Amino acid sequence: MEELNCFSVKYHNNSLQILDQTELPYKEQWVVIESVDHMVHCIKGLKVRGAPLIGVCAALALADYVSKQEPSKEAIQIALKQLREARPTAVNLMYAMDELGKDLTKEVIIEQAFKIAREDIDLCTQMAKNGLAVVKDDYNILTHCNTGALATAGVGTALGVISEAHKHRKNIHVYVDETRPLLQGGRLTTWELKQQNIPQTLICDNMAASLMAQNKVDLVLVGADRIARNGDFANKIGTYSLAIAAHFHKVPFYVVAPSTTIDAEAQTGADIPIELRIDKEVKGYKDCIWAPDVPTFNPAFDVTPAAIITGLITEQGIFGTSELAEQKHLN
Amino acid sequence: MEELNCFSVKYHNNSLQILDQTELPYKEQWVVIESVDHMVHCIKGLKVRGAPLIGVCAALALADYVSKQEPSKEAIQIALKQLREARPTAVNLMYAMDELGKDLTKEVIIEQAFKIAREDIDLCTQMAKNGLAVVKDDYNILTHCNTGALATAGVGTALGVISEAHKHRKNIHVYVDETRPLLQGGRLTTWELKQQNIPQTLICDNMAASLMAQNKVDLVLVGADRIARNGDFANKIGTYSLAIAAHFHKVPFYVVAPSTTIDAEAQTGADIPIELRIDKEVKGYKDCIWAPDVPTFNPAFDVTPAAIITGLITEQGIFGTSELAEQKHLN
Repeated sequence: MEELNCFSVKYHNNSLQILDQTELPYKEQWVVIESVDHMVHCIKGLKVRGAPLIGVCAALALADYVSKQEPSKEAIQIALKQLREARPTAVNLMYAMDELGKDLTKEVIIEQAFKIAREDIDLCTQMAKNGLAVVKDDYNILTHCNTGALATAGVGTALGVISEAHKHRKNIHVYVDETRPLLQGGRLTTWELKQQNIPQTLICDNMAASLMAQNKVDLVLVGADRIARNGDFANKIGTYSLAIAAHFHKVPFYVVAPSTTIDAEAQTGADIPIELRIDKEVKGYKDCIWAPDVPTFNPAFDVTPAAIITGLITEQGIFGTSELAEQKHLN
Repeated sequence: MEELNCFSVKYHNNSLQILDQTELPYKEQWVVIESVDHMVHCIKGLKVRGAPLIGVCAALALADYVSKQEPSKEAIQIALKQLREARPTAVNLMYAMDELGKDLTKEVIIEQAFKIAREDIDLCTQMAKNGLAVVKDDYNILTHCNTGALATAGVGTALGVISEAHKHRKNIHVYVDETRPLLQGGRLTTWELKQQNIPQTLICDNMAASLMAQNKVDLVLVGADRIARNGDFANKIGTYSLAIAAHFHKVPFYVVAPSTTIDAEAQTGADIPIELRIDKEVKGYKDCIWAPDVPTFNPAFDVTPAAIITGLITEQGIFGTSELAEQKHLN
């Protein structure tokens, strides 16, 4: 099979490997994917995460499986379904699996899987270029969760725009929401920004509104896990709260996501299923547990209505709220 | 000296003791206060916390000092100043110290210190009774930080109202914001609610807006560290974000605080000094550190404008936004 060498996934010497994101920033540990089951386990356990990356990794896992095992079409169908259902919110996973499901020939699956990976790289590059238009010199940009090279096969979505702006010497500074409960901002985004020498300040999620009140945030950029026909979108829990605060303070707020994140079947945000995750994530972090026997509410995502954001940046261009309302992002 | 036996501070056998809140809920450890310096250290380090409790504990530390050391008036003045400056935002501390500063006679200081403690107990009881009016049967109440018997000498402020509603069998359920960075909600409020068998669900701060969007929150109750003449108030970081979300969703949002939290010198929220704390608090919790070498922004409090809240509940009664605007809470 061909070779692929991304920041957080690689296919090398016929071996599919992912960078274990649950161990970052403590350890950079690559995991060799042994089977479809193993990839499903890695996706559920967030070793692989980020809507675009999940789609790419699931596709590569299926390609790896068909290339090594030569399974029957029935077996491929089962594997495909299993991967497709690994997580319920990010639509990129479903999109990738549906693409692969169109022709279950071994060669086609392999070709399509690598095509999905390469396309994701290109989508990121194009989004980053398009996003540059909303970043002015000396901007303080606030971001949530992780949307960089750890969340995609390419340079990222929201963080891809940030990297591009930094490369264009726009003298930006980034406020990073730590993103409770799993700290994808505090662990992963800070780590990526440090590698690129982009100036940053880490905050707790609940501090963002206070920064906005002090006029310290010029722009908010986030990713998305699924975008409905009307522009409503699901993204990491906390995004909605941030969008309300930005709306209240009239701070520009853009979602950056490829068109593979748009779900034309979802009319509005109400049609997007939201994954509920285990208590343990809220009650502590690694070995620090502070409320062992208290029930929690732990949605992995929330839905933000299109009406309160400034726009959506895809590989196709920038869509303001009125264009979202006219569903121009669907074309 | 007289005896005092509160939930989180006691004066027993001529010994001033505080319950170390940094160790909760892991350990219930009482610390004997050895000196004024020691109390200042405990206040700065959050072993003692909560605006009303800080005032009470500082007053008792001064009483303990004058009763044991028989210091000169100059020495008392120095001790008083040191205590007064232990933390900059909560005005209850300044209020208590200014009360004690009026007459530096040993007997008067001791008498006044215990009076401040007893008054705080009474203020809490009265606020709890007043607050009952805003709690309807079967309410889901969301709260932030800790405002209970761990934050006051009495039953608490916002959490005092919650306890009272529970005692009146209003069948309430509480959503507890974990309250990053120091998890006063996740560690302390959950612990207090458990002891009272009040049904609760722990959430990350960034999940509150999502609950509101699902109509799962009927009421938000929070405390305050300082209230300005116009009703703007400072409270634990994250309160402002929560107030904006409640305002956006039209969820009733009340501040519960005694009149000792009102600062008649502060015209608006802009006059309230906000304490900035150390990086380490944001970059981890106890031994879990996730961004060791990244700078942070770590304000301990934020300011919420009176215009976006529903009202203020003090021991005097309930003040709606128009009454706050007319400064009726100052009388």
